[in-house]
Amino acid sequence: MSELASKATKSDADDQLASKRSQFLLDGDVYLDGNSLGALPASVPGRLEDVVRREWGELRIRSWEESGWWTAPERIGDRIAPLVGAAAGQIVVGDSTSVNVFKALVGAVRIATAERGAGRDEILVDATTFPTDGYIAESAARMTGCRLRPLAPADVPAALSHRTAAVLLNHVDYRTGRLHDLPSLTAAVHAVGAIAVWDLCHSAGALPVGLDEHGVDLAVGCTYKYLNGGPGSPAYLYVRRDLQDRFDSPLPGWNSHAEPFGMRPAYEPAPGALRGRVGTPDILSMLALEAALEVWEGVSIDTVRTKSLALTDFFLECVTEYVPEGRVESLTPVRHEERGSQVALRCEDAATVMKHLIARGVVGDFRAPDILRFGFTPLYVTYSDVERAARALAETLAP
Amino acid sequence: MSELASKATKSDADDQLASKRSQFLLDGDVYLDGNSLGALPASVPGRLEDVVRREWGELRIRSWEESGWWTAPERIGDRIAPLVGAAAGQIVVGDSTSVNVFKALVGAVRIATAERGAGRDEILVDATTFPTDGYIAESAARMTGCRLRPLAPADVPAALSHRTAAVLLNHVDYRTGRLHDLPSLTAAVHAVGAIAVWDLCHSAGALPVGLDEHGVDLAVGCTYKYLNGGPGSPAYLYVRRDLQDRFDSPLPGWNSHAEPFGMRPAYEPAPGALRGRVGTPDILSMLALEAALEVWEGVSIDTVRTKSLALTDFFLECVTEYVPEGRVESLTPVRHEERGSQVALRCEDAATVMKHLIARGVVGDFRAPDILRFGFTPLYVTYSDVERAARALAETLAP
Repeated sequence: MSELASKATKSDADDQLASKRSQFLLDGDVYLDGNSLGALPASVPGRLEDVVRREWGELRIRSWEESGWWTAPERIGDRIAPLVGAAAGQIVVGDSTSVNVFKALVGAVRIATAERGAGRDEILVDATTFPTDGYIAESAARMTGCRLRPLAPADVPAALSHRTAAVLLNHVDYRTGRLHDLPSLTAAVHAVGAIAVWDLCHSAGALPVGLDEHGVDLAVGCTYKYLNGGPGSPAYLYVRRDLQDRFDSPLPGWNSHAEPFGMRPAYEPAPGALRGRVGTPDILSMLALEAALEVWEGVSIDTVRTKSLALTDFFLECVTEYVPEGRVESLTPVRHEERGSQVALRCEDAATVMKHLIARGVVGDFRAPDILRFGFTPLYVTYSDVERAARALAETLAP
Repeated sequence: MSELASKATKSDADDQLASKRSQFLLDGDVYLDGNSLGALPASVPGRLEDVVRREWGELRIRSWEESGWWTAPERIGDRIAPLVGAAAGQIVVGDSTSVNVFKALVGAVRIATAERGAGRDEILVDATTFPTDGYIAESAARMTGCRLRPLAPADVPAALSHRTAAVLLNHVDYRTGRLHDLPSLTAAVHAVGAIAVWDLCHSAGALPVGLDEHGVDLAVGCTYKYLNGGPGSPAYLYVRRDLQDRFDSPLPGWNSHAEPFGMRPAYEPAPGALRGRVGTPDILSMLALEAALEVWEGVSIDTVRTKSLALTDFFLECVTEYVPEGRVESLTPVRHEERGSQVALRCEDAATVMKHLIARGVVGDFRAPDILRFGFTPLYVTYSDVERAARALAETLAP
């Protein structure tokens, strides 16, 4: 056994999260694509069977009340809350990330302009982010009469001014895995009186976010990456408690009404986080997510972060040791404060290389034009997985 | 056996759709709430188990391509299309009805104003409709600089003018079951150069809609009522083929991009119906819906309509015969051209009466303040169910 393989075995033996792996249904593959679609938690299939056969099939319409369907968006929001450093009552689950970005950004502009005047006419958006945020931000800007300014996150502080209404940033860059400095960027946004909106898709469940601690105003995120909610599972919206009364949603569906079953012609928004709801929640996807969240029982997100950094450090170490020099170049920051839970390697013929890797049972993904992307989910990825992945990469790239 | 019970038995024996009932998982109850949540089709549990365990659990990320997840919204849209009289390529499934109303109405206003000038500044909306349509229409009006005019559908023709940008109407009133005249109202809207948007929640799967035939511009609908897709299953958006190039969505998420995996910073809308997509589709709910739609194999919507009218006629006949005079009053139009697939009875103490009915195994629902609502799903409701429901109602109301 190589030195690194021995080190992996030892690290696995010492891993505080090791027992969590058995709560997922895994096969012999090394799955490093949990930052795209999390693996299947063992609790999901049985729970979903019960939701379908008993709650839908037998109780039918009664389940809206008796099975707690109606309150699922806020109940599951409260379950996500501790993972992103939020107290209860500030998150609702539902809709896609894109739809939530729209709600959050329009809501943010309305708060900023209502309070601080019509001169607030700019939205700053992370130009390096996952593109949907930029597309939706463009629509939000157009529909609120704002100008959209796409910028690299590093250029945001210098661009902030009394004209800034809202700033939309991604906590971790989906491509490079770079972690942005949420506390200092949020503080900078607040210093000019603007509203900070964060996209947590690539950080929630992988590292501490500290929404409440850092005074984030609004946040959105998906649940199918590190939260393992299943393909296209519903996203969530965080609205900080003291902003909820001022949150004026552009999608005021009947689920966000103060009295949804009053069927009243005039809209009156519900108090609290419920104001972020829109239409009837997609119960099957939502309750699969709820079951998936059970794996977080007793898990500290700090422990997750410690293992995540150890995994990415170890992967980079193994790559350096195994892969012929010059064949790959890491785009992921070396400094822990700037690293999410993935490693992006620039590589010639990356698309083909990833195909070969997958054929060898190491699943990452390819991002155009030349990136091999590996995500590390601390709940089920082992150090031995990491060593095997680097070894497979080296073998794939061997001359 | 009473005369009406004998008649029911005979009608059931003659029912062309009788064999469809066995494709649902039903119990001994008479389920007349399929206009709120359709019963569970037998094909769903097994299919969903396969989606979860094999497609998600084993294939994981590969399923986006190999299991056809990525193309599900348009594939399932094409499956719904014949049920609402639409040719393929005009419907995408996804998001809630409320979100789709927003896309459709903003899109409608943009088409009308782009083509016919800025003087088009009014949105007319059905004031009697399910409230979410009115709430969302109010937001769409606010965000497009239009004035919202809520009206009874009968007053729409007189209110139409060169200022009308778009009109949102509900095909069947959720409360009374009144069917509005889609062909003539659509023609009236077109006569003033405005765009007609129809909400099909309470008609799709219960009666012919004829979207293409009647030149409807945009339409939305849910899939959990007569389409039996499951609790909160995704809604759909219809954009008529020749309007698709001009459809300018207010929610241009990455799934509606011409090249979604190009991850390009500039938004370029996809051609065709795909332009109505937004974010990552909720696969579990969506594929449950796809399985649920299998029950429509070989079913003619005209046959469904014939049986639907026969069921509601028979229910009214049984109610007249069994229920003591003066205890209930039907709000549902007598004329077939004005009737959807439900019967709404005004009744004193309706909430309590419905509780007693449910305790007797007859499930309808209560709508405030005084309405007993019974929905008739021709695929699984029998004439004997109908006779039993009216008898139970009479027994409940007996002095």
